[in-house]
Amino acid sequence: MFKPRAIAVDIDGTITDRKRAINCKAVEALRKLNIPVILATGNIPCFARAVAKMIGVSDIVICENGGVVRFSYDGEDIILGSKEKCIRALEELKKHFYIELLDFDYRKSEVCMRRTFDIKKAREILKDFDVKLLDSGFAYHISDKAVSKGRALIFISEHIGVNLKDFAVIGDSENDIEMFEVAGFRIAVANADERLKELADLVTPSNDGYGVVEALEFLGLI
Amino acid sequence: MFKPRAIAVDIDGTITDRKRAINCKAVEALRKLNIPVILATGNIPCFARAVAKMIGVSDIVICENGGVVRFSYDGEDIILGSKEKCIRALEELKKHFYIELLDFDYRKSEVCMRRTFDIKKAREILKDFDVKLLDSGFAYHISDKAVSKGRALIFISEHIGVNLKDFAVIGDSENDIEMFEVAGFRIAVANADERLKELADLVTPSNDGYGVVEALEFLGLI
Repeated sequence: MFKPRAIAVDIDGTITDRKRAINCKAVEALRKLNIPVILATGNIPCFARAVAKMIGVSDIVICENGGVVRFSYDGEDIILGSKEKCIRALEELKKHFYIELLDFDYRKSEVCMRRTFDIKKAREILKDFDVKLLDSGFAYHISDKAVSKGRALIFISEHIGVNLKDFAVIGDSENDIEMFEVAGFRIAVANADERLKELADLVTPSNDGYGVVEALEFLGLI
Repeated sequence: MFKPRAIAVDIDGTITDRKRAINCKAVEALRKLNIPVILATGNIPCFARAVAKMIGVSDIVICENGGVVRFSYDGEDIILGSKEKCIRALEELKKHFYIELLDFDYRKSEVCMRRTFDIKKAREILKDFDVKLLDSGFAYHISDKAVSKGRALIFISEHIGVNLKDFAVIGDSENDIEMFEVAGFRIAVANADERLKELADLVTPSNDGYGVVEALEFLGLI
């Protein structure tokens, strides 16, 4: 039986419903754990640290799909990706689509856009750029190819001295794939991206946050 | 019996415990309400909007103790106070104390500091400045005298067309006083500042978020 020494969990679509409201059962379950719980999100650092504070888990967060890592509420943003690369790609996309930017000034390592254009076409346009175009299910992200939630998890595992094989990860979307590729045990929630479910050691019966509770029960943590 | 048409509620110390972890009973109670729930905090706009999204209440938030108001998650920060005034006062305080700044770059209308110096002495030093020095219980804030949660609530009531006398407000600390002075019904939680309790129409038996649930029950909303 797998016994995690730390957990990394996505926020939107994993511990929240489709409206992004948090599941209180998941909050209470995560809060009870006596191992580090690392929130891993595509959202901005000040969103991630707020959610970590509200849930009452460790202040260690992966933000901007791995472009930024934080270790304490009042600590520094550790920036792992190049926003400049992403802005160059954005300028190219603007020639082809009307782009609505989200939190541009708050983002430290990437560019986030409303899901208003054809992402397949956009990926073709950007094929020669050193960036990737992610769909979190809530927004599109232009992200430095060098960053991912997986790379960020490697960075954190070295920093806190917990081996990657001792991490359980819980997610729902394609921006969780690299985290699944490096972690010891992978859990996809019921509403997860099919590719994520293929990589998963466990697919939960439920979604909207209840899947997280089921996952923690399966792991014998609650 | 008072029937509120909208509610404004402080975050830290009111819907959270001392560690700032949110009370899930309060979250579920607030989420159920079919009237606007406005979060009113001394924290920064991106913290407030994250908490509003997580709780699943209206995206209308009062931030920085009234220095900033927001009406939608992806909307603008409406800035009601002068950060420049606060920075001039900060420069004066730095001559007398070692000051540890909090979220300086994220704050749009004020300056926030760790509670590491004598606030009474600091208030004396700043008596001729056009600012006020607030203690939220979690941090000290240098704030433009022109702003308060009360002024911000007036601004919001006009914007959403709900009369101030139809607002119930719930809070715990001195930065909630001006909001208490303008609202129709005032609720202080058990751990509230004594001056706030004196102004209150209701003081709840409990704290750590349970007081919010008691307040909503008292108002017949849940």
